Amino acid sequence: MHSRPDADDPRLAELSEGRILRSILSRTTPGAHTLLGPGDDAAVIAAPSGSVVATTDTLVHGPDFRLAWSSGHDLGWKAAAVNLADVAAMGARPTALLVALAVPRDLRLSFVERLADGFRDACAALAPGCAVVGGDLTVSDVLTVAVTALGDLEGRPPVTRAGARPGDVVAVAGELGHAAHGLAVLFGRFRDGDAPIPVDPSLLGPGESAAVAAQLRPSPPIGLGVVAAAVGATAMMDVSDGLALDARRMADASGVTIALERAELGDFPERALAGGEDHALLASFPDGILPPGFRAIGTVRERADENLLCDDLPVDVSGWDPYRDWDSVAG
Amino acid sequence: MHSRPDADDPRLAELSEGRILRSILSRTTPGAHTLLGPGDDAAVIAAPSGSVVATTDTLVHGPDFRLAWSSGHDLGWKAAAVNLADVAAMGARPTALLVALAVPRDLRLSFVERLADGFRDACAALAPGCAVVGGDLTVSDVLTVAVTALGDLEGRPPVTRAGARPGDVVAVAGELGHAAHGLAVLFGRFRDGDAPIPVDPSLLGPGESAAVAAQLRPSPPIGLGVVAAAVGATAMMDVSDGLALDARRMADASGVTIALERAELGDFPERALAGGEDHALLASFPDGILPPGFRAIGTVRERADENLLCDDLPVDVSGWDPYRDWDSVAG
Repeated sequence: MHSRPDADDPRLAELSEGRILRSILSRTTPGAHTLLGPGDDAAVIAAPSGSVVATTDTLVHGPDFRLAWSSGHDLGWKAAAVNLADVAAMGARPTALLVALAVPRDLRLSFVERLADGFRDACAALAPGCAVVGGDLTVSDVLTVAVTALGDLEGRPPVTRAGARPGDVVAVAGELGHAAHGLAVLFGRFRDGDAPIPVDPSLLGPGESAAVAAQLRPSPPIGLGVVAAAVGATAMMDVSDGLALDARRMADASGVTIALERAELGDFPERALAGGEDHALLASFPDGILPPGFRAIGTVRERADENLLCDDLPVDVSGWDPYRDWDSVAG
Repeated sequence: MHSRPDADDPRLAELSEGRILRSILSRTTPGAHTLLGPGDDAAVIAAPSGSVVATTDTLVHGPDFRLAWSSGHDLGWKAAAVNLADVAAMGARPTALLVALAVPRDLRLSFVERLADGFRDACAALAPGCAVVGGDLTVSDVLTVAVTALGDLEGRPPVTRAGARPGDVVAVAGELGHAAHGLAVLFGRFRDGDAPIPVDPSLLGPGESAAVAAQLRPSPPIGLGVVAAAVGATAMMDVSDGLALDARRMADASGVTIALERAELGDFPERALAGGEDHALLASFPDGILPPGFRAIGTVRERADENLLCDDLPVDVSGWDPYRDWDSVAG
């Protein structure tokens, strides 16, 4: 699929918008909640419980991904996954995605086709029943993928960040720190000067392969959002900026202190605390409740001076984001 | 408000994402349908009729707007209006907007504040009860505004493009051709070489002022979408690519021929047929039904060789989009 000759793989500038859209939409499959799919002014999606959960998140070439590292399929998959995670973090079941693509004219059609495949495959793997129901295609010098995800609460109230109560167990589902580890591997080993170069899998150890995959093709535990809500999670959120920063946000929203146990944070606790883009689910549960897929990492306490503790000590993690300090580099 | 000194108006690069978001969100007001607004992983919006209408449309600096011509307020207003029009065209009442901004670092905070004001003011004027419920902020060299609009059908079926029946009246609400006229004025009179320059209102005649406003700050008849649906519109769509092209789309989707009457297309029928970005509502109604705000412009016939006629003659309009052929120009 990467060996398609260029003669059979036109640049987008050579094609009409209608032709490109047909190619994308032929790759999407209707979802269980799709009442009216692509092709009209708007889509119609079932919202059986009388409300809809909605979130939007954008990936921009440069700050958020590099084409030297991410295939079209990777990019579509990741753009779906990060948005699905935000829906899951409310305790909702994802029902639909809308995809706004802004694409350079010299991009090949096959890239956009793989991008569409990535969206479809991520929905099938992470959120069965969810599908791309609509989108928009525009031209831009900077490849930009803006996604909106919708979800249904199935009659439950949304699980916000603000409901953690003293005595609750703090738990997490999904990996912590792997995506940041993967990004460090990419920045450390797959650059020629400042320019990113394609990943050579033969140069990766087994842990590194998993970490790079977590960065480029994350698989957050989307289905566990509904599970957590159904058993009574008091608060929940997507861990996108590192456990330390996101746990502080939950503590502040709930007016509590979150006390983590370092021994529960895996073999690399500093990486787990600092690492971004995990898209794990962080949740609090009433004491005694811990659904399958979640592991306890701490407890909720009455609010103290510090909003976050680890082994009863203040946590000093500034986080780490090499993209942020790495501007205007081709790749 | 445009005289704010630069010292009080920092560039976005000098501010944290949290600071910028607070500034934007302080300008949004909760909508009547907002169950949970910005600040959590996702918003929750009422969908009382058990389904939700959803559409997305993006404005990219260069192909879709130029900062020399559009203020921040204009840009927010237009990004809201074009998405609200797609919701209205389904016969739905707009309930919420999600706004994904990708912004250059050197943009001033005041620009983003005016953008947020534009969103708020467009909702208040065009779709009362609709509000910005969430968003995303990323960095990009190309200013990009990707909007998703949601709406509620209030128990009615969606009005698609596919329901026009022979014998129906074809009608339109809103202006035709003004936005394209405005764009022609901008391209013809407010450029220095290839670079756009600010509009000097004193150089515009009365008709030209209205046309430039229709291009930069369109006011589609959003509320008439619900009105049309309630009286039984058989088909409806947003006229975004010119009446000729969009009427052909409705004719093809419905399997009919649409016969327009030139005398009903105003003083500049060619402009009405070709002009894009009107965001008027094109609808078909059973004979004898024409709700206030709509004017008849033709009839629906059994499908013939031509999908579109005007005074019984084929229509040859290629459309006109100077942006499309005007790349890589600063401004």
